[in-house]
Amino acid sequence: MTSFLPGHAERNLVLVSGRAHPELAHDVADELGIDLLPTSAYDFANGEIYVRFGESVRGADVFVLQSHTAPINQWIMEQLLMVDAAKRASAKTITVVQPFWGYGRQDKKHRGREPISARLITDLFSTAGADRLMSVDLHAAQTQGFFDGPVDHLWAMPILTDYVRTRVDTGNVTVVSPDAGRIRVAEQWAAKLGGGPLAFVHKTRDITRPNESVANRVVGDVEGRDCVLVDDLIDTGGTIAEAVKVCLAAGAKSVMVAATHGVLSDPAVQRLSECGASEVVITDTLPIPAEKRFSQLKVLSIAPLVARAIREVFDDGSVTSLFDGNA
Amino acid sequence: MTSFLPGHAERNLVLVSGRAHPELAHDVADELGIDLLPTSAYDFANGEIYVRFGESVRGADVFVLQSHTAPINQWIMEQLLMVDAAKRASAKTITVVQPFWGYGRQDKKHRGREPISARLITDLFSTAGADRLMSVDLHAAQTQGFFDGPVDHLWAMPILTDYVRTRVDTGNVTVVSPDAGRIRVAEQWAAKLGGGPLAFVHKTRDITRPNESVANRVVGDVEGRDCVLVDDLIDTGGTIAEAVKVCLAAGAKSVMVAATHGVLSDPAVQRLSECGASEVVITDTLPIPAEKRFSQLKVLSIAPLVARAIREVFDDGSVTSLFDGNA
Amino acid sequence: MTSFLPGHAERNLVLVSGRAHPELAHDVADELGIDLLPTSAYDFANGEIYVRFGESVRGADVFVLQSHTAPINQWIMEQLLMVDAAKRASAKTITVVQPFWGYGRQDKKHRGREPISARLITDLFSTAGADRLMSVDLHAAQTQGFFDGPVDHLWAMPILTDYVRTRVDTGNVTVVSPDAGRIRVAEQWAAKLGGGPLAFVHKTRDITRPNESVANRVVGDVEGRDCVLVDDLIDTGGTIAEAVKVCLAAGAKSVMVAATHGVLSDPAVQRLSECGASEVVITDTLPIPAEKRFSQLKVLSIAPLVARAIREVFDDGSVTSLFDGNA
Amino acid sequence: MTSFLPGHAERNLVLVSGRAHPELAHDVADELGIDLLPTSAYDFANGEIYVRFGESVRGADVFVLQSHTAPINQWIMEQLLMVDAAKRASAKTITVVQPFWGYGRQDKKHRGREPISARLITDLFSTAGADRLMSVDLHAAQTQGFFDGPVDHLWAMPILTDYVRTRVDTGNVTVVSPDAGRIRVAEQWAAKLGGGPLAFVHKTRDITRPNESVANRVVGDVEGRDCVLVDDLIDTGGTIAEAVKVCLAAGAKSVMVAATHGVLSDPAVQRLSECGASEVVITDTLPIPAEKRFSQLKVLSIAPLVARAIREVFDDGSVTSLFDGNA
Amino acid sequence: MTSFLPGHAERNLVLVSGRAHPELAHDVADELGIDLLPTSAYDFANGEIYVRFGESVRGADVFVLQSHTAPINQWIMEQLLMVDAAKRASAKTITVVQPFWGYGRQDKKHRGREPISARLITDLFSTAGADRLMSVDLHAAQTQGFFDGPVDHLWAMPILTDYVRTRVDTGNVTVVSPDAGRIRVAEQWAAKLGGGPLAFVHKTRDITRPNESVANRVVGDVEGRDCVLVDDLIDTGGTIAEAVKVCLAAGAKSVMVAATHGVLSDPAVQRLSECGASEVVITDTLPIPAEKRFSQLKVLSIAPLVARAIREVFDDGSVTSLFDGNA
Amino acid sequence: MTSFLPGHAERNLVLVSGRAHPELAHDVADELGIDLLPTSAYDFANGEIYVRFGESVRGADVFVLQSHTAPINQWIMEQLLMVDAAKRASAKTITVVQPFWGYGRQDKKHRGREPISARLITDLFSTAGADRLMSVDLHAAQTQGFFDGPVDHLWAMPILTDYVRTRVDTGNVTVVSPDAGRIRVAEQWAAKLGGGPLAFVHKTRDITRPNESVANRVVGDVEGRDCVLVDDLIDTGGTIAEAVKVCLAAGAKSVMVAATHGVLSDPAVQRLSECGASEVVITDTLPIPAEKRFSQLKVLSIAPLVARAIREVFDDGSVTSLFDGNA
Repeated sequence: MTSFLPGHAERNLVLVSGRAHPELAHDVADELGIDLLPTSAYDFANGEIYVRFGESVRGADVFVLQSHTAPINQWIMEQLLMVDAAKRASAKTITVVQPFWGYGRQDKKHRGREPISARLITDLFSTAGADRLMSVDLHAAQTQGFFDGPVDHLWAMPILTDYVRTRVDTGNVTVVSPDAGRIRVAEQWAAKLGGGPLAFVHKTRDITRPNESVANRVVGDVEGRDCVLVDDLIDTGGTIAEAVKVCLAAGAKSVMVAATHGVLSDPAVQRLSECGASEVVITDTLPIPAEKRFSQLKVLSIAPLVARAIREVFDDGSVTSLFDGNA
Repeated sequence: MTSFLPGHAERNLVLVSGRAHPELAHDVADELGIDLLPTSAYDFANGEIYVRFGESVRGADVFVLQSHTAPINQWIMEQLLMVDAAKRASAKTITVVQPFWGYGRQDKKHRGREPISARLITDLFSTAGADRLMSVDLHAAQTQGFFDGPVDHLWAMPILTDYVRTRVDTGNVTVVSPDAGRIRVAEQWAAKLGGGPLAFVHKTRDITRPNESVANRVVGDVEGRDCVLVDDLIDTGGTIAEAVKVCLAAGAKSVMVAATHGVLSDPAVQRLSECGASEVVITDTLPIPAEKRFSQLKVLSIAPLVARAIREVFDDGSVTSLFDGNA
Repeated sequence: MTSFLPGHAERNLVLVSGRAHPELAHDVADELGIDLLPTSAYDFANGEIYVRFGESVRGADVFVLQSHTAPINQWIMEQLLMVDAAKRASAKTITVVQPFWGYGRQDKKHRGREPISARLITDLFSTAGADRLMSVDLHAAQTQGFFDGPVDHLWAMPILTDYVRTRVDTGNVTVVSPDAGRIRVAEQWAAKLGGGPLAFVHKTRDITRPNESVANRVVGDVEGRDCVLVDDLIDTGGTIAEAVKVCLAAGAKSVMVAATHGVLSDPAVQRLSECGASEVVITDTLPIPAEKRFSQLKVLSIAPLVARAIREVFDDGSVTSLFDGNA
Repeated sequence: MTSFLPGHAERNLVLVSGRAHPELAHDVADELGIDLLPTSAYDFANGEIYVRFGESVRGADVFVLQSHTAPINQWIMEQLLMVDAAKRASAKTITVVQPFWGYGRQDKKHRGREPISARLITDLFSTAGADRLMSVDLHAAQTQGFFDGPVDHLWAMPILTDYVRTRVDTGNVTVVSPDAGRIRVAEQWAAKLGGGPLAFVHKTRDITRPNESVANRVVGDVEGRDCVLVDDLIDTGGTIAEAVKVCLAAGAKSVMVAATHGVLSDPAVQRLSECGASEVVITDTLPIPAEKRFSQLKVLSIAPLVARAIREVFDDGSVTSLFDGNA
Repeated sequence: MTSFLPGHAERNLVLVSGRAHPELAHDVADELGIDLLPTSAYDFANGEIYVRFGESVRGADVFVLQSHTAPINQWIMEQLLMVDAAKRASAKTITVVQPFWGYGRQDKKHRGREPISARLITDLFSTAGADRLMSVDLHAAQTQGFFDGPVDHLWAMPILTDYVRTRVDTGNVTVVSPDAGRIRVAEQWAAKLGGGPLAFVHKTRDITRPNESVANRVVGDVEGRDCVLVDDLIDTGGTIAEAVKVCLAAGAKSVMVAATHGVLSDPAVQRLSECGASEVVITDTLPIPAEKRFSQLKVLSIAPLVARAIREVFDDGSVTSLFDGNA
Repeated sequence: MTSFLPGHAERNLVLVSGRAHPELAHDVADELGIDLLPTSAYDFANGEIYVRFGESVRGADVFVLQSHTAPINQWIMEQLLMVDAAKRASAKTITVVQPFWGYGRQDKKHRGREPISARLITDLFSTAGADRLMSVDLHAAQTQGFFDGPVDHLWAMPILTDYVRTRVDTGNVTVVSPDAGRIRVAEQWAAKLGGGPLAFVHKTRDITRPNESVANRVVGDVEGRDCVLVDDLIDTGGTIAEAVKVCLAAGAKSVMVAATHGVLSDPAVQRLSECGASEVVITDTLPIPAEKRFSQLKVLSIAPLVARAIREVFDDGSVTSLFDGNA
């Protein structure tokens, strides 16, 4: 006899999903060519969540997908519980896939005695057992540094620009930022769309004449142009809808809106559908239920991107290569 | 000059509260003779919570009180955010006061591939920055071991028995456990109430004849007795209400129900108010809104106990002494 | 040339054992079809332990087996030292196999100012380098939550019931719990043995008449029945032996005792051999030396179960499946 | 006798400093009215650093001050060694005072396979034993979240604006950002200086016409105005010097430069002294040796601010209050 | 009312002791002028240890004293349990006082696949909750670095040399090291005793002629001298007894032995009492029971040193100052 | 479809190097038969280091090689940054290869209030993400215990002795230690070279007559012998050069010097080249630039040893076996 027993070395990829956004989970599974691992998840009478995996995950590379949509605290807790269950069930590695990073906007102390919520949420996932995080278009890239391990930061811009290119005459496009702080994103968009002009909107006053109580205004050439307003997310839609109106008032031929994350909290639907935008393009990192869909809304699937990234992670390939060396 | 600068050494106690159960927070503050520290807490449009303390907590012993009532995941998250804010604002120590320990019943893996949710929740508070936990009547005492630090485990039984003693003829009392697994709690009650007889109810079948599909039955002397049914919590009330009926059917003169935590999830109110109990006594570790109050319900205040324990912790006194050396 | 050097991916299972229970270690190795890894272990003059592995464990999945028998602190320390040695020798994963979980009964603070010894022991193994724990029949299932990682909790009941079924007429069996707190275990036994009646013994007094100083008594039908008394462990044997006598006094036809862990501290052997039990069945999770063996004692081997679990862990199979989805 | 021995409770503040910027250390000590704790620090022949405190720091609140100037890695290592020495010498708390946060600009992965150096440096200080960090004007506020504890983030702007207000006619001031990404800082300056107009410079091309290879240009009213160019730091001075020239070319009456951190790497001195700026105002968070001082340079002392913050931390006062509730 | 409740700030020193060496504990308590905190500690039938403090330790600076004598693993475990109990009982700080550091000689891997036991033991105390370690005369000073926090390393040499100075004519003393690796300790002794000559013994062969199988021999002037043989500990006494004989054979007038730790494992007593030493001086860091006392043995009390160090730690004084700036 | 996606299991070895010693890195890569992974590393104007890997390291076993030569703090920081980058880029394991362990001599507190720098440096690498350390000839073997994981401790002695054996008549060799504290290393050398005599030099005074101010002297037979002076490292060369002279003055026929690490700080080159040594043999664990090479210096390549150890680690072989079971 020998004192060593050789074992097999195959690896398994497992995808599990919380209840927040089942469509996305199924789409990602389809792209990967697998089934979601059967999982039980329900609420007890007092709101406590129960989860259990229906099959063994021992030794598997487990990807735990959840969309941080409302009720956001419930879905974050459910995802934490799933990570804990995977850890205790001997998963080999656990990757938290959160296409939209909840609490990502609370990434610093604006004033004393606040939490840094984005860091806290990240630490909670570490504690539960996450080995790696995967997310799409972080609000601030510094948030990656809140995790003490690998973060796969995916970019939805290629998906959005591929679509936009089919909808506008790129020779007549002006990319518009709704906010002075987001001009660099607009620059990247402009480069992708062929190098057209840039513009941006001042949110509350003319920044070059702060003493005059002027309304929002657009800086840059929008008159007669097909404008594309870009941002990372649309929450209640106030800033975006106002920017659309300002562009139109400044003579824009048309205004299209593009953003990665459609949070679409009330009254975003009303604002966006009535602001005059020709089209509002988002991805489905967050669920977009029927009652939030309006005629100008176009929802692109994020599933192929997420699935490709999961595949690269599992195959020890390069996620960076998905973005031309930029991620 | 000297290379040492002497400083003051005074200590401060600060009590902050989340939004789950403001009445309890104010009652505890009143018992302590202080005001709650002013705190802002509200929800953003997409459900993310924002918190901020209105005054400095630097160097203070901060007690962060939250009641783990529904929507329980939201209130746990709010408490975590408050702990993080206190940590980053230089609190000297942080004590998490959770009169009812949420997820405390999910304290083990009943089957493979489940989380151990009570341990996870405990770890989340450690990660956020908790130095100590304080809670009332844990579902299983082993849960204390989930925290790597001091846990002040308070006992509500003296509060409940003091009240019950005024309501029943202790010479005619039988203490009844609704479940075979809880007989030891009933033993302690019986001792406190003067040593009357014990009884218990079999939940689903006659445990001595498991093959016969007999209904619930009571073991012990209840005929003509004033029964006191005791448990740690009442959730949907099914087990308790059934036990009341069984006792009455077995000839009990009266049945009173006593429990520490009034979770009272639907349809507990209906069940309890209609089951025949003469009185249902609970404490207010969880909020009992007006719509949950019914004529037989008596709610005792837990605030004096919590306040005394906070005081002992702050004064480096003995919490054990509050319970005759038993906690 | 390339900047990547591909390597082999085979995995190795290694089993090492401390000195507490060499028979069990050899039995488990035999079941696995391997040799134990040669290991040196001895005591220095002042009682300090020295250990060293005789062959490389680099990259291997190492299972470190030790039985927590007396002198228990010595054997726990030896196992800790072996885990440290494996960690520093580049083991890939380390599983602590402790068929009986030492200090498992000290799982909570019964009173203030006690340790929670079971949690401490668990943390010591984490610190030494354990990635996973494996144990048989924990005293309280909550103890699993003391470890921040996977715990393989094995059940010896099938082994015991398989044997008992060959020794008694299952049509005439009554399963008896020696203690009111263990009725649920007895319920599982009764189901496994074909659904016979249950009974239990009150340890110190008639629980329904606490004021009368009555001796132990049995509740349930034992007259003329073949009783099987079940518990998780037998330490000094006082409770069990007393329960046997009570059953016999109540007219039982025969009484058999079954438990997983045979701690058998003095004077257990005398008590058990003289109490009137027809047979006492245990497993060898703890060593049963010749001087503890008496005529009615039957020791079943736990090695096949432990070996199968190790195999499943190593093969990334399902330990849950060993127990019909229950572990 | 008693089993308790009462002790004194006085606290001591100790300030120690590395060798990078002794002037600042002495200035802070003077403001506090204490001496620096005597400390030995020197380099061994192979460059290894040796440090030792000359007096006991047991039980003291120790503030370890170091300026992250070149050779920056040497000074960071020296500060880490001092923190380790304080930890092992039983300091009660250790605050790392780094007026300029080294590596703070490497706060995210711009591309795959980079470190997040600012997080790493923060973690190194945690590992060495830091309980708290104190710094002035972080490059990105998110960096605070890299530390799992309190960060006192001081603002130098009041010091700078107080000085600037004495040097310009605030009625004729235009605040200019050298970069589109820093407009919000300029907005705060403008508010502090009385609400004058804002402007900013495009670094490499006309952002509204990216295809035309236009040189830098200024947006906003600078003609005939007294311009104040503001930034958080000046490293090699290229961007700032270019911005000064652009403003002058656009007709500015005068251009003054203000920044918190004077890194002043080569060839900053040449660029700044020759660019046409009327004055360049910085603080001494970093040492400004004689060879870097040129006629237009004005260096303001940061010591009063740092000393006040240390005092508030030690007294459990409010650092937030130093900045009107904003820090 | 106010939102701050001011508290008292007094501190308390508590001394608790395990069962290994009660005399030392009482002596230290006497030196401090306090009683030991009443503590229960006993073994269960299977060897598991139970401990409980008899009074509150909340908020106190707790010193947990245990002597690492045989059965050493038992006493280490007991001390770990006491640390855990103190942590969970809200001690403010916990100092582990281990006058002799068990497993201190296993401080490195002599060969592959060994543990580094001294590091492991240190980590176990950290895990249990130790904030600080205190020990006397470590076998290797590097062991201090195994703890990530303050270690108070006490020196018994002044106690030993004060005594020796009264027993020998320092004008005629030669300090002898029993081993070439310990010459530096002998150098310190010689300096303390007035600068007499040094010598040392080669343990197994003439190191300058390794091929000749010569017996032990002494290097240096011992003829006609009063020799003092010094070491950190005496375990089985073989090396020391042999060195005494070699010195006498080389013409020494007398040989006295001095060491800090009297491990005195069998057959040390026989060897030492028969080797010809005029006196064997040790301290009582380890218990010296009556059966180990022989006529030439002199045991000095370590209690005053330990008590003074505890006092300095508690008072935030300087332990270094106890040793003329050398510790 | 299935819920499992099987993956490949191949492993990759990646070698990356900092800028301190590129020759060694290339030599090791050549020995392994691979290329170094392309890596960018440069300094920003203020001295901050930037690093980035040119290819994916996802899933690879990454070995990060850096030589801790002057400027040592810079190169340690660069290596830390590379480890962080590898961790965030999803390396499977990270091994820090530091042929010379910087700060290894500061392995204890010589006096109070010093750091334990060797432990700190070790912890910094753990924090950055190191899973394993590899080094050659540690100054003190206890340093291994500063890391909580595997340390591969390589021995250069076979390389040195193989060379020396070709240069001297082993029948006439005396191995000399420059210091009484290093005699054991000399013993191992003597055994390897055939068992010749040993000698050692007293550094500052005759240790057997400390009161007489005698110069250095050699103990043992060196007259007419070919002496080999051995040590772990040569820093400024003072001790070694002095020992050479003492041996020659004592009549040695020739003196050769051998050491593993050639730190060679000023004025080592002058001292060694002028001291009379026939040859000075070192390895290239540290870079030996042209200006440090003198006619008597012989530099042996450490690359084959490091490469073989890397290979064994990667192949899960035995590093111990490289040294006949001794490492």
